[in-house]
Amino acid sequence: MNDDSQNMLSAFMNVNLASISNNYRKISAMIGGSICAATVKADAYGLGLEEVAVTLKNSGCKYFFVSDLYEGIRLRDIFGSYDYIIYALNGLKPSMTKEYISNKITPVIGSSAELAEYNENTEVRTEHRIALHFDTGFSRLGFDDDEIDKLSINGDNIDLIMSHLSTAEDPESKLPEKQLNKLLKLTNRFIGIKKTIANSAAIFRDKSFLLDMVRPGISLYCGYNENESSSWLESAIELYAPIIQIKDIKAGSTIGYGASYRAIKDIRIALVEFGYADGLPWSLKSTNHQSGGKFYIDDTATPILGRVSMDIVAIDITDMKSDVKRGDFVEIIGSNQNIDTLAKNAGTISYEILTRLNSRVKKHYKYE
Amino acid sequence: MNDDSQNMLSAFMNVNLASISNNYRKISAMIGGSICAATVKADAYGLGLEEVAVTLKNSGCKYFFVSDLYEGIRLRDIFGSYDYIIYALNGLKPSMTKEYISNKITPVIGSSAELAEYNENTEVRTEHRIALHFDTGFSRLGFDDDEIDKLSINGDNIDLIMSHLSTAEDPESKLPEKQLNKLLKLTNRFIGIKKTIANSAAIFRDKSFLLDMVRPGISLYCGYNENESSSWLESAIELYAPIIQIKDIKAGSTIGYGASYRAIKDIRIALVEFGYADGLPWSLKSTNHQSGGKFYIDDTATPILGRVSMDIVAIDITDMKSDVKRGDFVEIIGSNQNIDTLAKNAGTISYEILTRLNSRVKKHYKYE
Repeated sequence: MNDDSQNMLSAFMNVNLASISNNYRKISAMIGGSICAATVKADAYGLGLEEVAVTLKNSGCKYFFVSDLYEGIRLRDIFGSYDYIIYALNGLKPSMTKEYISNKITPVIGSSAELAEYNENTEVRTEHRIALHFDTGFSRLGFDDDEIDKLSINGDNIDLIMSHLSTAEDPESKLPEKQLNKLLKLTNRFIGIKKTIANSAAIFRDKSFLLDMVRPGISLYCGYNENESSSWLESAIELYAPIIQIKDIKAGSTIGYGASYRAIKDIRIALVEFGYADGLPWSLKSTNHQSGGKFYIDDTATPILGRVSMDIVAIDITDMKSDVKRGDFVEIIGSNQNIDTLAKNAGTISYEILTRLNSRVKKHYKYE
Repeated sequence: MNDDSQNMLSAFMNVNLASISNNYRKISAMIGGSICAATVKADAYGLGLEEVAVTLKNSGCKYFFVSDLYEGIRLRDIFGSYDYIIYALNGLKPSMTKEYISNKITPVIGSSAELAEYNENTEVRTEHRIALHFDTGFSRLGFDDDEIDKLSINGDNIDLIMSHLSTAEDPESKLPEKQLNKLLKLTNRFIGIKKTIANSAAIFRDKSFLLDMVRPGISLYCGYNENESSSWLESAIELYAPIIQIKDIKAGSTIGYGASYRAIKDIRIALVEFGYADGLPWSLKSTNHQSGGKFYIDDTATPILGRVSMDIVAIDITDMKSDVKRGDFVEIIGSNQNIDTLAKNAGTISYEILTRLNSRVKKHYKYE
């Protein structure tokens, strides 16, 4: 059995690498002299580290942010070259300093404890570089004000100072500007060291956030839909799953686990081979009183009926005018429904949808 | 870098195969003459098909339910033997009949369309066996009443007739008994063919559901906590993640994305390297007005503060009496918190938690 036959009969995701490349190039072109890095952590948000990172490298990217040391080593092996800078966002893993150095992975150090451990295990005149994470109001990773004041660093081996924004996508929030100003103030004695604070949302918020480097992630993969100025970004994702049975259901019958949806008239349903074990949120379930998610067939919306099962979900095809049959594919993410809409219906965010799509969902990479 | 060093510094799950074996043997001992099959679909609910299926085989199991043909072929390769019966629950994939036959995978056929396709592609006197799925009120996969009445089958190659319950875990619901009675009525002309309807909950509901075969799944892996009569089942799962930074947060600071949680006094937080990309539900987030999930350190509850990030989550360790430091591990599932409690706090079910745990979470298999 070859891969093609498998792909034809199971759920699959199209990942359009050309769109990712286009997004990268367009963002690069709009940020002036700033460096366009790429955030490829968590297996490139679940899209596949190797394919995405190589695409970005071939599009001109030289700086990559991964989750941790192990993902950094994986990316170093993919590149097979030390020409690309790899930052491990989660900081310095205990007792692993030598691994960062031997693989030329730049740890993003965010606490005095990490910095002390790094220095204890490093030669004074090392060529290895580190990044520092300054917490400017996110209250997650990073040095806080007191620690930064006490930093006595000659700057020799500091490659980058980064900070991260908590509400960059919210036009009403004033926090991003506060965080930016704080970073500028905290770093004014770190002369000649690159500074970065912009995630995807901040790139489109205001030019003042661009600084020396920007670190787009979601905007490279799914576009960034909350802002008109970024409407030219392309979504690189489509998701489809096959119908495995068509059924006529009599009025009064209940559908699926918990008998939580009752047919109030005779209806026709399709059973789609896609469930929460594939990454479809259980929260897309519906009852008679609360609508849930929907899929699309031939551009027509088909609502989810009842609960999402582990491998299967039922959709309402009663009003479909075209003939729907076993073996047909339904659109979960595509031209009719973007990932943000799906996420909103599930009460979550697009990032969670992307990163939870299971290895059972085959990825088809498209190059044009 | 060897695997052990990785395992020591990243999130990991313990899967106690001895508990799975114990659960299988104990359930087998309480079901009289009924066959104890095992439901190992969706990569054994995310626990690892190979390790779980081999454990069950070595515990005496001969009948296995998987999701589909491809998972069936994988399991056949794992066994390297035709001595074990493998049922593919999702039915007959279009144009793949010969693959079921050559790999001796038993499709669980649930519609006339599938049965017609199977018969068209099979010799009349085949040794290959099929199972039939009768829909007795679940309104998911399976033949409905009209189709069953029209079935003209000599029974030669039907190995099993199965049905599936919608509300077996609900003691108030009368649907399970209705479904059971319907199955018995629908199958009374299928003499000499094994019948099965019991999932985990039905095994503990009443002996009348046992029939010729039971198909436990969740009860083998996590116990089954909703019923006193099954309190002797063992949970086979523990989940831990490391702390990567400790921080003191001043009153008034907001924590994480969306600035959705504000510290109302000076607090101390720990940043845990475990986020929704690992499988931690985003819905475990908290605000000042709504509590979310919690982890445990030294048997003390430490609540999640703010949103769950892709790779990281913050917990409140202000009241911890013991010294908590970077590199310590927190309990996500274990002796203080079972998977049902975690799922309930996330507004979902244990099955979704299990099957969404990402490949980034290393599995440690324990054998005693």
